[in-house]
Amino acid sequence: MPTDPVRLTAELIRCPSVTPEDGGAMAILTAELEAAGFTCWRADRGGVANLFARWGDKAHAKSFGFNGHTDVVPVGNRGDWTADPFGAEERDGQLWGRGATDMKSAVAAFAAAAIDHVRETPPDGAIILAITGDEEGPSVDGTRALLDWMSENGEAMSVCLVGEPTCPDEMGEMMKIGRRGSLSAWVTVTGVQGHAAYPHRAKNPCHALARLMDRLASHQLDQGTDHFDASALQVVSLDVGNPATNVIPAEARGLLNIRFNDCHDGASLSKWLRQEAAEVDAAFGTETTLEIKVSGEAFLTPPGPLSDLVARAVEAECGRKPELSTTGGTSDARFIKDHCPVVEFGLVGKTMHQVDERVPLEQITQLKETYRRILVEYFA
Amino acid sequence: MPTDPVRLTAELIRCPSVTPEDGGAMAILTAELEAAGFTCWRADRGGVANLFARWGDKAHAKSFGFNGHTDVVPVGNRGDWTADPFGAEERDGQLWGRGATDMKSAVAAFAAAAIDHVRETPPDGAIILAITGDEEGPSVDGTRALLDWMSENGEAMSVCLVGEPTCPDEMGEMMKIGRRGSLSAWVTVTGVQGHAAYPHRAKNPCHALARLMDRLASHQLDQGTDHFDASALQVVSLDVGNPATNVIPAEARGLLNIRFNDCHDGASLSKWLRQEAAEVDAAFGTETTLEIKVSGEAFLTPPGPLSDLVARAVEAECGRKPELSTTGGTSDARFIKDHCPVVEFGLVGKTMHQVDERVPLEQITQLKETYRRILVEYFA
Repeated sequence: MPTDPVRLTAELIRCPSVTPEDGGAMAILTAELEAAGFTCWRADRGGVANLFARWGDKAHAKSFGFNGHTDVVPVGNRGDWTADPFGAEERDGQLWGRGATDMKSAVAAFAAAAIDHVRETPPDGAIILAITGDEEGPSVDGTRALLDWMSENGEAMSVCLVGEPTCPDEMGEMMKIGRRGSLSAWVTVTGVQGHAAYPHRAKNPCHALARLMDRLASHQLDQGTDHFDASALQVVSLDVGNPATNVIPAEARGLLNIRFNDCHDGASLSKWLRQEAAEVDAAFGTETTLEIKVSGEAFLTPPGPLSDLVARAVEAECGRKPELSTTGGTSDARFIKDHCPVVEFGLVGKTMHQVDERVPLEQITQLKETYRRILVEYFA
Repeated sequence: MPTDPVRLTAELIRCPSVTPEDGGAMAILTAELEAAGFTCWRADRGGVANLFARWGDKAHAKSFGFNGHTDVVPVGNRGDWTADPFGAEERDGQLWGRGATDMKSAVAAFAAAAIDHVRETPPDGAIILAITGDEEGPSVDGTRALLDWMSENGEAMSVCLVGEPTCPDEMGEMMKIGRRGSLSAWVTVTGVQGHAAYPHRAKNPCHALARLMDRLASHQLDQGTDHFDASALQVVSLDVGNPATNVIPAEARGLLNIRFNDCHDGASLSKWLRQEAAEVDAAFGTETTLEIKVSGEAFLTPPGPLSDLVARAVEAECGRKPELSTTGGTSDARFIKDHCPVVEFGLVGKTMHQVDERVPLEQITQLKETYRRILVEYFA
């Protein structure tokens, strides 16, 4: 009898696993997987629950990996929900609750697909599930910890599919073959305070900051590539906090974020930002410091066997040929790409992180069948 | 026996007249002036004490006016003072206390000069003293109220001298024949909030604000005139207050101040600011509103008989030919200039508004003698 991914999704939704809480989710998955012959290990780190499950031989050259997370973002304003966020209510053909789309359904779907696959058509190879309890939080002790644990224990995936929601509106319309990188910079411009009536005695950091931010925001970083949109810089804050019209302040701060494609990396962008700041400082006599954080480099799994395989399965099950996209925010694929080819395919993400997060029941089943078809083809 | 301006200054310093408090200052002046034959009226308004004193015929075509204020700015950190701010201590040849330079000494000096003059050489004309208790505060019910009262009562000055501190370092080196205007603008740019990863769905008000402020600050308003420095715009604050690197905020605010010469007025600058904002809005799809406050228009009393008279007296008493300047902040001369020619001459302003505000005793006497010489020449 096939594993019901809707039942399993509902069980996972009932675990209140707001990052970094596990809420019992890993125990449910472990029991389910062990019953089907998977061996399970915990790669917990820093208070985060991480589950590594494998069916088949560790030494096998051919292993298909799934990656996903059981943690969810907070409920937000509970009063705005029309359903219990941890109730997994079925209503109007949908399953309601936090994590319904992002991404307990996908975890349930790939677990169910893997269980059915090893039971019905035991493959010549290994199937690996690397499931973390911190993708929505700092992501330091989540998939990274799983990958560290795998390296230490001689575990490896030949290829990996991340089950994050990838479809903007319709099931099957998009899969991801890469992600843009993300860099944030905290900018502090120091000038010389003074009286607005005597600007020659001061050095106005507001003027330098306005110039710098305008230069940065106006610069075209690139025109996009075959698989990526153009990189984009957004100034997201400017902060001085001076209410006195007759005072030139000593300091002005700004905050910016860059989403960048594979024309760049964190180091090249940091160098560019520092050069721009130095030129503005030279013009204004100010001193600018940059605190830069690269939360993910851009990466691409170029179209090839893995993306072809997934795209074919998506088209067969969902009736749509998926676009190979690199849009959107970051995901744990940014860590996995250093280990093996990785692509992403999952549900429609419309209600993720919102109140009344929900998923049509049929899409959970469709997703499971897609994952199952991928396994069948992969091991054929 | 001549009137001692040091004694009178000390008496005024002992009145704790932090705006809008009078602290007894007007009563001291009234008693002193009435004893010398002046008639005194109070033109109080809005809780502010204002004193109008005249010697001579109201209808006389020739009247010399003095303007000044008895209110002072707050003491600041009392513990940082080495003297009682309201004690009028004489130490090291100086008189210490709040208002010692700005500007109880000058009020005492012109009152003493006027008293001696009418006693010793009664002029063919009138001498007017228009003294307010709010120059350091909102200045709404101060000299403006005196001028309104004068209009209502058929009083007028042929010329006026404002006794504000005008000398940067040495007694006699500078007098003012005009002042720059001052305009402040509170700028609010409204865009469309969004996710930093999807900037095409948002309209970033930070980008528009940075562009606008850079354009405004880079623009050369003029190159200065014969009597004025170049006008100058200072951006003094930029405020968004968004800590989230992945959020494009909905609104960005800025604050700027323009000190402008007589090439401009508040209306022409307001028009220019709104045009610049409209152009930036057109480029960014944002909506910018400006709240503009003109706290004073630029004005100039062109060099002529009045400035010549004052400059000659300053040179004779202080040994220096004063520069005819229009630098610095605003003063009540900006109100008086609509009624009669007005110039400013007073003490060295170095310690004004600071802790341990103080004035050399000899400079008070020098200032009185300068004012006296001006009266002698004016009525000669």
